[in-house]
Amino acid sequence: MPDDLDPTLNEMGEFSVIDRLVAGRTLSDSVLVGPGDDAAVLAAPDGRVVISTDMLVEGRHFRRDWSNPHDIGRKAIAQNAADVEAMGAQPTAFVVAFGAPPDTPASAALQLSDGMWAEAQRCGGASIIGGDLVASPQWVVSVTVFGDLRGRAAVPRGGARPGDTVAVAGALGRSAAGYALLLAGADGFSDLVRSHLVPEPPYGQGQIAAEAGATAMTDVSDGLLADLGHIATASGVGIALTAAGLAPDVEALAGAAAVTDADAWDWVLGGGEDHALVASFPQALPPGWRSIGEVVEGEPAVTVDGLLWSGARGWESFN
Amino acid sequence: MPDDLDPTLNEMGEFSVIDRLVAGRTLSDSVLVGPGDDAAVLAAPDGRVVISTDMLVEGRHFRRDWSNPHDIGRKAIAQNAADVEAMGAQPTAFVVAFGAPPDTPASAALQLSDGMWAEAQRCGGASIIGGDLVASPQWVVSVTVFGDLRGRAAVPRGGARPGDTVAVAGALGRSAAGYALLLAGADGFSDLVRSHLVPEPPYGQGQIAAEAGATAMTDVSDGLLADLGHIATASGVGIALTAAGLAPDVEALAGAAAVTDADAWDWVLGGGEDHALVASFPQALPPGWRSIGEVVEGEPAVTVDGLLWSGARGWESFN
Repeated sequence: MPDDLDPTLNEMGEFSVIDRLVAGRTLSDSVLVGPGDDAAVLAAPDGRVVISTDMLVEGRHFRRDWSNPHDIGRKAIAQNAADVEAMGAQPTAFVVAFGAPPDTPASAALQLSDGMWAEAQRCGGASIIGGDLVASPQWVVSVTVFGDLRGRAAVPRGGARPGDTVAVAGALGRSAAGYALLLAGADGFSDLVRSHLVPEPPYGQGQIAAEAGATAMTDVSDGLLADLGHIATASGVGIALTAAGLAPDVEALAGAAAVTDADAWDWVLGGGEDHALVASFPQALPPGWRSIGEVVEGEPAVTVDGLLWSGARGWESFN
Repeated sequence: MPDDLDPTLNEMGEFSVIDRLVAGRTLSDSVLVGPGDDAAVLAAPDGRVVISTDMLVEGRHFRRDWSNPHDIGRKAIAQNAADVEAMGAQPTAFVVAFGAPPDTPASAALQLSDGMWAEAQRCGGASIIGGDLVASPQWVVSVTVFGDLRGRAAVPRGGARPGDTVAVAGALGRSAAGYALLLAGADGFSDLVRSHLVPEPPYGQGQIAAEAGATAMTDVSDGLLADLGHIATASGVGIALTAAGLAPDVEALAGAAAVTDADAWDWVLGGGEDHALVASFPQALPPGWRSIGEVVEGEPAVTVDGLLWSGARGWESFN
């Protein structure tokens, strides 16, 4: 018998659920046509639009016994918004495709949507302007994000030059530490666990870096070494990190490392998903950025105090 | 032991697979930054961008024992492109998120991508400008499409006015017929089966309709009655179809209906996925469009010869 107070997606039906998800949302002025038509129309005031997409699959990118729907929604939006920040752009809008089993409570879909809207607002007043709702054996959340460069050039991965300072804005290794704590069932360290469930990209710092003349930038989604490796390869340079520059990040995780019998260096160098921003700067660093090394001539490689790191190097989708 | 001639996604690794998918593709001039950075940058020459997204899940939206990867790729692109055409816009680019089991042959991902590129070219020389590749228990293909209005107003669902002619461009009921034939294991009718596996939206006709002054438009994705119902509701009008206007579509399916013991009217009125375009026109129809009824005053409802249809009304995601 249907539960009238909390109907499932199947009981409520696709179109009624969508009506609920869309009702009462305030769209920003840049949304020229919002949800409810075949497509949305978004303003692109400088004649360009920045676009990135990420898919999150239940059991692979999130666990429903760890994350509530609101957190999953926030994470999906945050990791997409970070890709736009990493180009030096302002996130302006998102579209979302959501797959879930037909017996999913409609209230869970609403909580997911609420989390998405909350995070979209946090990253600069962006709107969710469209989507798709389908049946799937497990939850799948696929987000596409749009951004506005406000007349600036995009900051690529391939522009780092020898002599540039390598700097980071945001946290390193906290998400990986939180994941290890969750896996170990360890008590305490709730702030690190939260960092894993809902990353907090340093919103606005990508645009600040672009204004400050950053030559290359990316967000740490796969792991610091892996993502700086992408910059090194794209730029044809080496990247020389210093242990001293990263020591504060490592020390901040020492307690969690002791509890889980882990090496905090693995988390800081190999852990992704914090969505910190890393960039190279030829001039002085803007506020909010801290130096962790420099760009050097040579083969594309990332070293720490001159050595290649032998531990975990980062996330790949299929291993 | 790995098959060196056809490695799996897991054996090849995410980044190597992506390199293969991207290699050798020719991006159109509107792609300012293509694959390989945190985000793509797409030109939006008139200061607006049209955006729609659709997710396809294996077993729900396609069956891998019926469709090869190339066909799945074509279908995913076609149904998204149709949403942009339904706004009166030109599809210009796509981003694609693809989830698949780690033991999927990399060659299957390449065939999927080849099918996507082939269809993107068919719909007007569009490019695939970015994506995501993740592990998933079954195939999930999530596409977001972008379109250019070329200075025109978008054609909404809500603009139909009493007295407008209701017209269609493209096929009706063929996909549903093909689906019934596949389910029944019937021989022959290979063109109808193809219509189900790879829809052929009437590319260009949405833009032609916009130029010809169409007041409302949508594509037939859920079913003719369901999709015209969306126009009727959004416009606050009735839509009066004529059996005579639809009879040619029904007659074209008579053979397949006889073989599967089905009613071809169910396919034409209730079958979606052909991605025909339906629109309302206050003036003469442009070439490529045929009249199937008219817009009338009254409650939002769609009738055929003045009667409400009692058969299948269209697709919803969760039933």
